Amino acid sequence: MDDNATDFSRGCAWQRGQYVPIAQASIPMTDWGFLRSDATYDVVTVWDGAFFRLDAHLDRFFASCERFRLDAGKSRAEVTDILSQCVRRAGLRSSYVEMIATRGQPAWGSRDPRQAVNQFYAFAVPFVWIANEQQRERGLDVAISPVHRIPPSSVDPRAKNYHWNDLTMGLLGALDQGAESVLLTDPAGNVVEGPGFNVFAVVDGGLVTPAEGVLEGVTRRTVIEMARSLGIPVQLRALPAAELRGAQEAFLSTSGGGVLPVTKLDGRAVARGQVGPVTRRLVQTYWDWHRDPKYSTPVEY
Amino acid sequence: MDDNATDFSRGCAWQRGQYVPIAQASIPMTDWGFLRSDATYDVVTVWDGAFFRLDAHLDRFFASCERFRLDAGKSRAEVTDILSQCVRRAGLRSSYVEMIATRGQPAWGSRDPRQAVNQFYAFAVPFVWIANEQQRERGLDVAISPVHRIPPSSVDPRAKNYHWNDLTMGLLGALDQGAESVLLTDPAGNVVEGPGFNVFAVVDGGLVTPAEGVLEGVTRRTVIEMARSLGIPVQLRALPAAELRGAQEAFLSTSGGGVLPVTKLDGRAVARGQVGPVTRRLVQTYWDWHRDPKYSTPVEY
Repeated sequence: MDDNATDFSRGCAWQRGQYVPIAQASIPMTDWGFLRSDATYDVVTVWDGAFFRLDAHLDRFFASCERFRLDAGKSRAEVTDILSQCVRRAGLRSSYVEMIATRGQPAWGSRDPRQAVNQFYAFAVPFVWIANEQQRERGLDVAISPVHRIPPSSVDPRAKNYHWNDLTMGLLGALDQGAESVLLTDPAGNVVEGPGFNVFAVVDGGLVTPAEGVLEGVTRRTVIEMARSLGIPVQLRALPAAELRGAQEAFLSTSGGGVLPVTKLDGRAVARGQVGPVTRRLVQTYWDWHRDPKYSTPVEY
Repeated sequence: MDDNATDFSRGCAWQRGQYVPIAQASIPMTDWGFLRSDATYDVVTVWDGAFFRLDAHLDRFFASCERFRLDAGKSRAEVTDILSQCVRRAGLRSSYVEMIATRGQPAWGSRDPRQAVNQFYAFAVPFVWIANEQQRERGLDVAISPVHRIPPSSVDPRAKNYHWNDLTMGLLGALDQGAESVLLTDPAGNVVEGPGFNVFAVVDGGLVTPAEGVLEGVTRRTVIEMARSLGIPVQLRALPAAELRGAQEAFLSTSGGGVLPVTKLDGRAVARGQVGPVTRRLVQTYWDWHRDPKYSTPVEY
């Protein structure tokens, strides 16, 4: 067994009633969570020893389970305890913490999802940034992809899910053309969302973010609440790709780093190609709010 | 360890270089094949000791890998050997045999799928019928769902994938209303496909099957080839739900049982609600072709 396999500091997972080092964490090959991507999940972050907006993430996780008719088999208090234990056992002060409910499987041969015993999994790993320090300082170069995000008439985007093939294929195309990440579109030519983030444009000094066909991100919600508290107007509506390209500023929102500036789209500068004042103000407020006890749940180490 | 855990007769899997009883088979929790459903697969069946159309399944598996930019890391001969070994070690004369390529994962924190080491998995389990004997005799009652199949502009349906949430939610709705399975639609009101099968209508004595937005099923291809050999005309085109409801006969095609008659749609009889002559002829031919050495690859037990 190599060092990784016994090293809790690389992350800790909860599976089948036990805490294990992340390198040992697995799901059964026959779990429909894998074989049919029949699962939901949520990701909450720990920053400086405390969960940020844990309640909002738990609310969404249980709502996602309900939408997909999955039963995590754990109460809110039990999930909280498992997530805390994962972080504590890994000894992480800053962490990316994922909770998962899978369909499990019925007796082999049955095709009835109602006969499956659903399963709960969780893990905590070191904090993941979607953009590195340099990218956060100068802003990201993001491609707008011709791949369409899976529409809400097929999969409910409000329930967080692993249906990422569109995002992955879009991302591969973007990386090939030299971009750093990707935004997917809808058939009407609006930008929708990217792999792990929502998108905002600054237009006429206010924010615009897509209303439909997107994950209702907790960070997206935090941005909307921050903007309101700062007196910045917010519109939730379709965001045509052309409007985003012509915006005063653009940024992404994600648990993987908060508010991430976008200064280029398909290699062309957004406005003057620099991180703008509205974005900077929101980045600052985002990290300030991490110190607000209202949003903060300390991990008991 | 319970009996299942060491029982190869319930199935055998290949993982990380080893053959294990199916109950022990797992994938790492952090493999993007799970966390992003970033994977492709194929299912070939063994009937009476021989693979049926193994070449066609291998062709499609490697084509699917290419479409999703996955490298199974195994040659055609190596995959064939692993599949055979799984069947042999499980001692199965009739088997459902699945081969899988997953993205694996890059170093934690990287978001670049190109940096991941792709993984290959396989397993053989006892043959799975999508319809039981009684259902095959009297025909299935299938619901036509308002859920739309994920469109080709989002996920390429020709590459077999685990993006099944639409199929699963549609199936749950169908089971709730008392149906036995489900067909999904497209936004124009055409039927497309169901969980693990394609669909055919018999119209004016010939076959109609959807041309776009569907998996190019090997059994679908077999049906088309059988029809041609029997002098039955075949049209590949959009199949409106209303046309299917008014068809002379309807059936499904799947590796999980071949040609499966549908005699009711949403509880209402298709034609006179009995398995029709074209369907019966195709069922017979399907099993006859299993004895044709052209399509048959014996397992070395």
